[in-house]
Amino acid sequence: MAADPLKNIRIVLCETAHPGNIGAAARALQTMGLAQLYLVNPGRFPDPQAEWLASGATDVLERAVGCANLDEALAGSAFTVACTARSREIAVPMVSAREAAARIAEVARTQSAALVFGNETFGLTAAEVNKCQLLAIIPANPRYSSLNVAAAVQVFCYELRMAVLDGGAQGGKARRLATFEEVEGFYRHLEQTVVETGYLNPAHPKKLMPRLRRLFGRAELEKEEVNILRGLLKALVRPKPRRSKPG
Amino acid sequence: MAADPLKNIRIVLCETAHPGNIGAAARALQTMGLAQLYLVNPGRFPDPQAEWLASGATDVLERAVGCANLDEALAGSAFTVACTARSREIAVPMVSAREAAARIAEVARTQSAALVFGNETFGLTAAEVNKCQLLAIIPANPRYSSLNVAAAVQVFCYELRMAVLDGGAQGGKARRLATFEEVEGFYRHLEQTVVETGYLNPAHPKKLMPRLRRLFGRAELEKEEVNILRGLLKALVRPKPRRSKPG
Repeated sequence: MAADPLKNIRIVLCETAHPGNIGAAARALQTMGLAQLYLVNPGRFPDPQAEWLASGATDVLERAVGCANLDEALAGSAFTVACTARSREIAVPMVSAREAAARIAEVARTQSAALVFGNETFGLTAAEVNKCQLLAIIPANPRYSSLNVAAAVQVFCYELRMAVLDGGAQGGKARRLATFEEVEGFYRHLEQTVVETGYLNPAHPKKLMPRLRRLFGRAELEKEEVNILRGLLKALVRPKPRRSKPG
Repeated sequence: MAADPLKNIRIVLCETAHPGNIGAAARALQTMGLAQLYLVNPGRFPDPQAEWLASGATDVLERAVGCANLDEALAGSAFTVACTARSREIAVPMVSAREAAARIAEVARTQSAALVFGNETFGLTAAEVNKCQLLAIIPANPRYSSLNVAAAVQVFCYELRMAVLDGGAQGGKARRLATFEEVEGFYRHLEQTVVETGYLNPAHPKKLMPRLRRLFGRAELEKEEVNILRGLLKALVRPKPRRSKPG
């Protein structure tokens, strides 16, 4: 793993419409020492506008990774945070950008972490937020909270850099967190199990799975814990009693 | 004096060449609850590019005050800070953006304060810095420290807002956590279940329960979540197949 935690942090921009914002975001990353930019379905990219606004931050821009969907962008991430300036009625725990940065910096000492930003007009969708373990909020003016996406990226990258700069002396054993895919695999297993046992009616799912995601998201599951939980699921659900067969 | 310290703080942009940066800066102010933008010799202003990038932050943009020189822009300011991302050989005390914000927020409770930003290409001149009492630095990547001026304004306005909010301890909705007894009840239920299903051999418990306690402990379970988890346990474990009885 890289010695510099900032190099373990990826910034994921979802459905960014304006290439200028991609360029400005690349510049924001580079000024703060981050290097990994992931673009989920960008509107136009590459584009001269992006290059113009990157203003020399070409290292980051040229290595930007295009992705077809958010899952692809989050592959391998052990800690994933949705970033916004609007608080929402959503079943994911909320913290300030500053608190989120401290937690991300801690994880990024040994594993990959990701920050996810939404489209300029619509922000993050509920589905996007639900892929994340934490919702981090820039405490903005409630009467006008619309930060430009690259400005929001700048603030978060700044907080990450500040957290890493003064987090050098953090103690504690680093935890081996499960990756995004491992945690998603557990959720699929869990959902399949609750459906099979009839606890969850897939026609009326209510909020069971989002609630459980929120709970386990907060816990920041370790690799070994995912294994324990999946073992537990398997053990708890006994095989269905077979219908008695003739003979 | 205004009750809101943020309303006592002016952002002064010196010799800004691109009107887009003025618009983006206006938006940055408005998102963070600041209102006073001063423009010293802007390259082009007003300009449709500024309006476009202000993106609705028209209150700030329309009230922007044009000034012929920096002295004019600083008239009445009781505390003046030069803002940059490059450290310099200059005879003004240097602090971090965060520390500067705390001091400005303190002054702005009762008096006017000003933050001064330089031109896009040349930054602040020595003469401009020397008009200020403090040099505040965004600790940027030493290999690429060139923040866009509106991005730097965003970071400083964010720090000012955080300082005024006093650390930004903005909560989300208060969570209704489960009591100690409720959580312990869940652990007992869980343990009993894993023993009954044979997943845990009580003679060789290993570390399963401590691991699970640690996991759920981190999550800080809510009342409702304890209910969901216990419902889930009950649903997953099907009744044992009864031994066939005679008769």
